[in-house]
Amino acid sequence: MIVVMKSGSPEPEIARICTELQSWGLTPEKIVGKHKVVLGLVGDTIDLDPLQIRECSPWIEQVLRVEQPFKRASREYRHGEASDIVVPTLNGDVHFSEHHPIVITAGPCSVENEDMIVETARRVKAAGAHFLRGGAYKPRTSPYAFQGHGDSALDLLATARAATGLGIITEVMDTADLERISEVADVVQVGARNMQNFSLLKKVGAQDKPVLLKRGMAATIEDWLMAAEYILAAGNPNVILCERGIRTFDRQYTRNTLDLSVVPVLRTLTHLPIMIDPSHGTGWANFVPSMAMASIAAGTDALMIEVHPNPSKALSDGPQSLTPDRFDQLMKELAPLGKMLDRWATPVPALV
Amino acid sequence: MIVVMKSGSPEPEIARICTELQSWGLTPEKIVGKHKVVLGLVGDTIDLDPLQIRECSPWIEQVLRVEQPFKRASREYRHGEASDIVVPTLNGDVHFSEHHPIVITAGPCSVENEDMIVETARRVKAAGAHFLRGGAYKPRTSPYAFQGHGDSALDLLATARAATGLGIITEVMDTADLERISEVADVVQVGARNMQNFSLLKKVGAQDKPVLLKRGMAATIEDWLMAAEYILAAGNPNVILCERGIRTFDRQYTRNTLDLSVVPVLRTLTHLPIMIDPSHGTGWANFVPSMAMASIAAGTDALMIEVHPNPSKALSDGPQSLTPDRFDQLMKELAPLGKMLDRWATPVPALV
Amino acid sequence: MIVVMKSGSPEPEIARICTELQSWGLTPEKIVGKHKVVLGLVGDTIDLDPLQIRECSPWIEQVLRVEQPFKRASREYRHGEASDIVVPTLNGDVHFSEHHPIVITAGPCSVENEDMIVETARRVKAAGAHFLRGGAYKPRTSPYAFQGHGDSALDLLATARAATGLGIITEVMDTADLERISEVADVVQVGARNMQNFSLLKKVGAQDKPVLLKRGMAATIEDWLMAAEYILAAGNPNVILCERGIRTFDRQYTRNTLDLSVVPVLRTLTHLPIMIDPSHGTGWANFVPSMAMASIAAGTDALMIEVHPNPSKALSDGPQSLTPDRFDQLMKELAPLGKMLDRWATPVPALV
Amino acid sequence: MIVVMKSGSPEPEIARICTELQSWGLTPEKIVGKHKVVLGLVGDTIDLDPLQIRECSPWIEQVLRVEQPFKRASREYRHGEASDIVVPTLNGDVHFSEHHPIVITAGPCSVENEDMIVETARRVKAAGAHFLRGGAYKPRTSPYAFQGHGDSALDLLATARAATGLGIITEVMDTADLERISEVADVVQVGARNMQNFSLLKKVGAQDKPVLLKRGMAATIEDWLMAAEYILAAGNPNVILCERGIRTFDRQYTRNTLDLSVVPVLRTLTHLPIMIDPSHGTGWANFVPSMAMASIAAGTDALMIEVHPNPSKALSDGPQSLTPDRFDQLMKELAPLGKMLDRWATPVPALV
Repeated sequence: MIVVMKSGSPEPEIARICTELQSWGLTPEKIVGKHKVVLGLVGDTIDLDPLQIRECSPWIEQVLRVEQPFKRASREYRHGEASDIVVPTLNGDVHFSEHHPIVITAGPCSVENEDMIVETARRVKAAGAHFLRGGAYKPRTSPYAFQGHGDSALDLLATARAATGLGIITEVMDTADLERISEVADVVQVGARNMQNFSLLKKVGAQDKPVLLKRGMAATIEDWLMAAEYILAAGNPNVILCERGIRTFDRQYTRNTLDLSVVPVLRTLTHLPIMIDPSHGTGWANFVPSMAMASIAAGTDALMIEVHPNPSKALSDGPQSLTPDRFDQLMKELAPLGKMLDRWATPVPALV
Repeated sequence: MIVVMKSGSPEPEIARICTELQSWGLTPEKIVGKHKVVLGLVGDTIDLDPLQIRECSPWIEQVLRVEQPFKRASREYRHGEASDIVVPTLNGDVHFSEHHPIVITAGPCSVENEDMIVETARRVKAAGAHFLRGGAYKPRTSPYAFQGHGDSALDLLATARAATGLGIITEVMDTADLERISEVADVVQVGARNMQNFSLLKKVGAQDKPVLLKRGMAATIEDWLMAAEYILAAGNPNVILCERGIRTFDRQYTRNTLDLSVVPVLRTLTHLPIMIDPSHGTGWANFVPSMAMASIAAGTDALMIEVHPNPSKALSDGPQSLTPDRFDQLMKELAPLGKMLDRWATPVPALV
Repeated sequence: MIVVMKSGSPEPEIARICTELQSWGLTPEKIVGKHKVVLGLVGDTIDLDPLQIRECSPWIEQVLRVEQPFKRASREYRHGEASDIVVPTLNGDVHFSEHHPIVITAGPCSVENEDMIVETARRVKAAGAHFLRGGAYKPRTSPYAFQGHGDSALDLLATARAATGLGIITEVMDTADLERISEVADVVQVGARNMQNFSLLKKVGAQDKPVLLKRGMAATIEDWLMAAEYILAAGNPNVILCERGIRTFDRQYTRNTLDLSVVPVLRTLTHLPIMIDPSHGTGWANFVPSMAMASIAAGTDALMIEVHPNPSKALSDGPQSLTPDRFDQLMKELAPLGKMLDRWATPVPALV
Repeated sequence: MIVVMKSGSPEPEIARICTELQSWGLTPEKIVGKHKVVLGLVGDTIDLDPLQIRECSPWIEQVLRVEQPFKRASREYRHGEASDIVVPTLNGDVHFSEHHPIVITAGPCSVENEDMIVETARRVKAAGAHFLRGGAYKPRTSPYAFQGHGDSALDLLATARAATGLGIITEVMDTADLERISEVADVVQVGARNMQNFSLLKKVGAQDKPVLLKRGMAATIEDWLMAAEYILAAGNPNVILCERGIRTFDRQYTRNTLDLSVVPVLRTLTHLPIMIDPSHGTGWANFVPSMAMASIAAGTDALMIEVHPNPSKALSDGPQSLTPDRFDQLMKELAPLGKMLDRWATPVPALV
């Protein structure tokens, strides 16, 4: 932490601040510049708030954090090694990691009925997906829109898993539902709107299932890693970071702005694996294939793609869903790129 | 709802779409333009998603919503009349409404101990505040930062109320805490980070205490009113909208961008009362007085201002807190403006 | 400037960097922290780019600027004193300064014809305005939209000045037009879209007329002050900063987000006077009065308000224009507030 | 254009509006909905401003544009066919088009001296680039930063062209410099900060050299296409659109947010070719390779990459520049992907 004093700060005031900071367990070292005095704070500063230090004196101009505010999420925490999050499924272990093939998650926005979810699961499995996504509880902007079938949808996801062996990813919106959801889900999703629902983060951090943490619409990369830090600090080391588009000034042709540069940025900051969701990221099915290709080329560890057997009848998010046929074709388009980068799995043969 | 067809759409396809939309209970009326055909949809469209209609046919170019997606929150719902939310306090009824004096809420970011909260309550009461704000449960970006004293802080808020007669506003972060909080709080706050925590919105909508709904950092005005709609639709008509700054590209000198134009905009859209929080809105105590003045001049119904007896020792958000002395002075600065606009209450004499 | 080394940086590399920076005329002072080494650079750093220093070594983690990158625009440059920009007009000197009455600029987006501009000038003069605004050259998003009447409009502005004694503010878009414009204009405006047109900034800095510098749609406050610095560095000390709304994620109900917090922020950073344009800032006439009130309460030094005799027939920006009657009424609403703050001029009696 | 009337609009007022709009050459068709009346306007609306129509009556609630405001830039204008912009160079014709190999532009931010620019040109040529980029006139945020060597730098670019046969791309900032620049440049660049410098757009539209139009930092895709429309409407059909990152709320780890979804979006909207600049788009050399790969996978027609022989000594933008060695390696990484997509040219053998 670096404290920059205003020019003209009186010497006794600087001395007073140094004494104050020493009482906080820090060792201030003073640099006398041409115009300004700067104090470097040596000591354990991760739980210090720069804003709080600033309040020590009206003569303080700025307080600059030199160290990252996240610890367990940082790449250094694992000495530069990437995490390898292993999720057991009926079809075998699936690894989320930069040293393994790209994990494909596909399925509808929401679980509508048994036929629909099982049929979708079979189709995406046949096309090469490893996980089925599907919402039982749905965060919807309008209280008048379909809110998900809830518990009964969880049963249908279990049925789809039994039928295909796919792993299940589904979203938790309320701490009260977590126990039921984590019985069915192989990976528990925290959605973009709940990325800073800290009560929920603590609870998913206190259970065993891996957590898919979607980036909030206005979350900086640092905010996002701090949200991951909540889960890690609560004891769950298995967090997958999912970019799904951020909110910017231009929302006319895409619903969000997919920020693919998170891939190289996160690689330098964290050991956690990265997923990209081009379906929410663009909001339109016809932009998904191009952005899925780009995600793989950028180096993502996983993809999440919405697939619905009949998008025009979807109870939610139809316009961004691919049909099973289009998804099948997309997987064929992605495979050569995945293979070229040595990150593509040979599809698991379907269960009977 | 207006459906715009791509130029060159085949007539039979248009006919097919009309039939489909009729099966949804709508009456399509066709306009044949120079280049394009447009369908106006007559019927009940509030729970229709424009995106879903768009999926009916690849020949549909755009679907434009003509009616607002919120109903109970709309100004029309009360035939143009403003809401008057009456909150009983020991000092008498307080009205949140454009036809009453501006309601002043003040207090610390978080409740730290009994002396501090009671002392702050006395000071802000003496200066003319009607409500005491203070966090028992705190949403903090870092898991290593102070998270609030929880239940015991609720008891201290009750003590401060007994000592001063002020109403109490405090934040709920978890549905599991709601019951305890609503026993103490006169107004329950939903924070910016939980503005689209729909489970929480439904729960605060199903209890009786008025709800202060802070605008999310990246929430459009429409998103915000839809969040209010969740609470209203769940049965609680008493929602106060609080602007606390949005996230923009410039965060160097203020932590958020306070969007004061919400005051005239919300007046045209909704009957709900409006509060402005210049403390979070700017993030720095020295910018608060200017923005508090501007808020009143813009026409706000209420203000929320952070006050801490010793900002440099605050466990959270110190830099944006005024000292009690500065708050006292601010109230004296605001009073002539409030009186000029005929929206300033004579301070209630202090309880013994 | 502060250089933060990565943890584990080798000592010889740090020594090498220090030698390199000494060769740039700087004196590095080293702080050895618990995890990291930090170098404080003492010397003249205003023209150094932090990014360039960072390139000295892959072991450098961050370079933090401690001093502001603007010099002539800074409040310190005038030892804390506000500028007083005096513009002579036929009606007498007008002062743009925090120690003088608020300057009111009003008029149409573009000059359409003689009757219209002279009539508008008379009306806004009668209501109390000091300056007439009106575009001769108009920046329009579409090449098919009205682009302004150019030179002939300048003549009409001169006519309106002669008729009313008002000062004239008009926009320059092209360096080639500057000479003609500065013959007529009392204040030359650089528009938001040209805020970083550095060729234009240098040219308006090399002529004598005061410059009204509008903030760019995505300009940070620092970008804006650096744009002012271009003009100041080119020799023209008379720059007025005009906030006109920034671009954010929410553009549904207002065309821009008016950032009123610039008023207190700029006061601490710069000696330059501040103008607010609530007409562009909101984009809708019915939101202008509330935001004009708020601007004055926030402490602005000047206001710019669009007025058009017949907004529905305006060749540009009709929806944000007030009628002369509404402007007259607005001035009556603003006056008590301006007087209360001791910043309102007694209207100059109209010329015959 | 669709006009939505407020609910309760009086019939005579609707009739009056229809008459008014007919006088503008439009044919209004009325739809009477359950709550509202909607008017569809048939006729030539491309040069109509929806805002202006709205001003016709206070009873108008919204005016929605149904047709795109750009014409010559639209995909329909060329009946769905992509443009093929052919630029003759000493090494042969280079095609910017979705049906040709990806065009690679590389070089330093600014031209510093003859050795540096010729050496860089040779190196990027050898690695497979088709164009040399290099700034003679530089837009710099600070007036105290290096502003480019101007005219003399143009001569050095000509020397580098003669030495390597590469085409030259350089930026024009001032209409006064255009003639000299277009003598040397094979493609004239309009930078992000001048994207809405309409005077400049008209001038580059009135000369013959193809124009590289960078997206403004806060420009929507529609704004950007309207800027292209200015050039096209002035007579120059050869415009290349270059995405270089937009400004968002997160600027901590990347200087801008590279919006790769423009690739599929622009494909559906326009016939113009697309270039991606990952160097400005991210601001850091180590993020460039990943984003260059992603750009190709997304389907870009061209790439612009900053290369500097000694980034730490660069007079501008060093941190985002690759060394020639790193660029050489990057081209080897990109080639297999380019070939897989059938969009990679066999490098032209170097001139002696």
